[in-house]
Amino acid sequence: MASIVSRARGAISPLMQRTKPIAKQALGAAVRSRTNGNVLTPSVWGLERDDAGRLLVQGIALDDLVERHGGPLHVVDGTAVRANAARFLQAGPDGKPLVEAYYSYKSNPVPGILQLLDRLGVGAEVTSHYELWLALQLGVAPEHIIFNGPGKSEEGLRLAVERGIQIININQLEEVERIAAVARELGRRPRVGIRVSTSGTWQGQFATHASHALDVFRAARATGVLDVVGLHQHIGGHIGSVERLAAPVDEVLDFVELVEEDGFELEILNLGGGLAVPTTYNFTQMDHKNNVHFGKPLPVPSVTEGLTIEDFVNVTHQHVAARYERRNRPMPRLMLEPGRGMTANTQMLVTRVLTERSTPDRDFLFLDAGVNVLPGFVSEYHHIFANTDPAGATDHEYRLVGPTCAPWDTLLHSWYGPELHTGDTLTVMDTGAYFVPMATTFSFAEPGVLLVDEGREVMLRRGERFEDIIALDKGVDGQDLV
Amino acid sequence: MASIVSRARGAISPLMQRTKPIAKQALGAAVRSRTNGNVLTPSVWGLERDDAGRLLVQGIALDDLVERHGGPLHVVDGTAVRANAARFLQAGPDGKPLVEAYYSYKSNPVPGILQLLDRLGVGAEVTSHYELWLALQLGVAPEHIIFNGPGKSEEGLRLAVERGIQIININQLEEVERIAAVARELGRRPRVGIRVSTSGTWQGQFATHASHALDVFRAARATGVLDVVGLHQHIGGHIGSVERLAAPVDEVLDFVELVEEDGFELEILNLGGGLAVPTTYNFTQMDHKNNVHFGKPLPVPSVTEGLTIEDFVNVTHQHVAARYERRNRPMPRLMLEPGRGMTANTQMLVTRVLTERSTPDRDFLFLDAGVNVLPGFVSEYHHIFANTDPAGATDHEYRLVGPTCAPWDTLLHSWYGPELHTGDTLTVMDTGAYFVPMATTFSFAEPGVLLVDEGREVMLRRGERFEDIIALDKGVDGQDLV
Repeated sequence: MASIVSRARGAISPLMQRTKPIAKQALGAAVRSRTNGNVLTPSVWGLERDDAGRLLVQGIALDDLVERHGGPLHVVDGTAVRANAARFLQAGPDGKPLVEAYYSYKSNPVPGILQLLDRLGVGAEVTSHYELWLALQLGVAPEHIIFNGPGKSEEGLRLAVERGIQIININQLEEVERIAAVARELGRRPRVGIRVSTSGTWQGQFATHASHALDVFRAARATGVLDVVGLHQHIGGHIGSVERLAAPVDEVLDFVELVEEDGFELEILNLGGGLAVPTTYNFTQMDHKNNVHFGKPLPVPSVTEGLTIEDFVNVTHQHVAARYERRNRPMPRLMLEPGRGMTANTQMLVTRVLTERSTPDRDFLFLDAGVNVLPGFVSEYHHIFANTDPAGATDHEYRLVGPTCAPWDTLLHSWYGPELHTGDTLTVMDTGAYFVPMATTFSFAEPGVLLVDEGREVMLRRGERFEDIIALDKGVDGQDLV
Repeated sequence: MASIVSRARGAISPLMQRTKPIAKQALGAAVRSRTNGNVLTPSVWGLERDDAGRLLVQGIALDDLVERHGGPLHVVDGTAVRANAARFLQAGPDGKPLVEAYYSYKSNPVPGILQLLDRLGVGAEVTSHYELWLALQLGVAPEHIIFNGPGKSEEGLRLAVERGIQIININQLEEVERIAAVARELGRRPRVGIRVSTSGTWQGQFATHASHALDVFRAARATGVLDVVGLHQHIGGHIGSVERLAAPVDEVLDFVELVEEDGFELEILNLGGGLAVPTTYNFTQMDHKNNVHFGKPLPVPSVTEGLTIEDFVNVTHQHVAARYERRNRPMPRLMLEPGRGMTANTQMLVTRVLTERSTPDRDFLFLDAGVNVLPGFVSEYHHIFANTDPAGATDHEYRLVGPTCAPWDTLLHSWYGPELHTGDTLTVMDTGAYFVPMATTFSFAEPGVLLVDEGREVMLRRGERFEDIIALDKGVDGQDLV
């Protein structure tokens, strides 16, 4: 190949040939001066490199995993899942967990992961009939299931009431009578909470604002068939500071006093999820433009800033506990609903360089996973390691593009790493939330999900085969296709 | 329900109760003065309404289809598919089609639709190993298949060379030797084209710019094992004017002369796809902001402007024919690769109001299809009809939201239609390109695809059942789940 390529390249104008290295040299200095100095190493995720510089998870080379199980491949680090669950369920002075944790199914609904979390004592937060069915199918006890969301279908409500789940959180006034009707029909008395918004939380279609949420509490009580036991608040996503967390919590605690003064005994206070992961963030338009036009790397996040899981749990608990202590009342059961915060950093995707390309202005790596598999790249920073890279090199600039024939399939316009070639592999970090459920079969099959845990490798979800993609299809005359 | 809801509403502050109608009244006038006067009626898509105002496709009420087949439901209008195919394959003066049409599989890869197009004489344009496999699996003749794209895997190239497809279009210099190696190994001589970009076409990872694409032609010839028969250009998406189409075509025709002077006999000139659909467009940030903040409807497109299929075919053909006539050379086979232009307006999605919500500032309709099923709403205008709406009313303002528990799941911040309630249905137009392949199973199962054609109703793809979603999964110990 070399001879043909170099012969053809020889025909490119000598000026263009000269321009690229000069431009890159000038750029290199600019880029170095523009980085923020933060460095993310594999150890941040509990990964290591062996003597050959190969990236390892629990001592196993990621390259070996792809070799054995095919790629692209999501790899779930069971040790990290166990660690995160334990951190959310950390014990207080009395030896019991400070909070109850319910995992947000929508963020990474891979059954094997959900089952592992169930075994670790983490409940299920579901937002649709499907997710509720899934939790029950996986053997999650009904009392460990919370049903939230604006899109509860009749069938979903019926299943929830029949099975007697822990709580159904009512999004809005109109839902009260829908649930009451199901309760009457089935002769059950479901436990419900009311979802409340305050300043600083999601609004729009979600929740009922505290300024009139008391009406929803009263309406639910007035049905006579709903057991109003809870109050639910979800601030929103990417909570990364004490301030962002504490202000809405304090505000909803003010509202809790109103509710309790109105005669409601709140057995459950559910303060939702939304904890950010220190190694990802939503980049700004300016970060993006600087990357696209000027080759500036996206800012590397600092892992010493931001909120840890322990902070999230402790701050929430302290604010609630302090308020109830001041009011001289027993504290309710405190629930949290982590999604991203529980699993984002427990999973990574291994992708391979399908082919490379060198043009007068830049070098491309075409990966076997693009935005079809890695949708988060549209708005989030995700760290990428070369799988063999002993020195953490950043001396080669590449545009990382996916394999789909779509102009938006660029993961990073400028990424800096070691010299890489066709067949080399990269690992994309923090793919454990909003990647699997937002993936598409756009021209390519979806990848498998492998759990590495306690010395075992379990294919939790095998990669799609072509036949799987059309398994529900018939031909134009209704005939079978496979 | 009425009594409880009205009782609870009575508790909302009287000021808030009064403010909403006043604000909406003032807004109404502003909105009316701001519409662009364009009106889209069902007849634009060949649909009708019956005497009761129910929307019909080929005489069948869309509501009846959802009743029979479940919803949400994509409905493919076979008559429209046949009409579009015939328009792309319109005959010239000699009675033969002016162009050959190859359907862009990636835009709506529903096998039954692809099979129907094959029977109508439309070929397959594939961009991945999977799509190539699918075309062959559906019985498409190898000579009716074009293989494009930047993400061709080794396995895909091998299958293409083995089966002797019409042509493989080479994206870049680095691909030459990859294909040649496969050809040598298999002892075959594949037909190849070179994909070229000019000003006004997609660049980035796609194609080789005309300024050095001749090198790729020469490199391919120099392998001795590739039959260099074609030149490929794809301008890009949403081509809506003669100017946008003609300028890049003229530019590539200049380059064609260079190539032919270099001794290449171009049997095939492939000018790609990208035709816009008159009833959709990419809205601007300003359109979006006006809709979000000021309740201004997104501008309704005019169907009398823009490029028709006939225009697209004729303008392309005329420019190429005129150039070859002037050069006194026989015209090559002219190929086009419509995706959106072929199927976008042949398909619609029927969705149901899952629940409604009235707040002091606005009324919501929660639909059973959100951005999980309707991803195009992120950037495109899509017309929405109420399924029962005899008068085409626009006197009620609704925020249309999907069922997922995600803040981005708003289809339209302000949509104007008749008064609607829980259980009513709406039809979203032009879902026949980039909806099915970009859909996700985010908390909800994916909908079915029904073909209505020549008096038949064929479920081309049945809606997912919950078990289907986890069909490839195992439990945390590797055990079966369903």
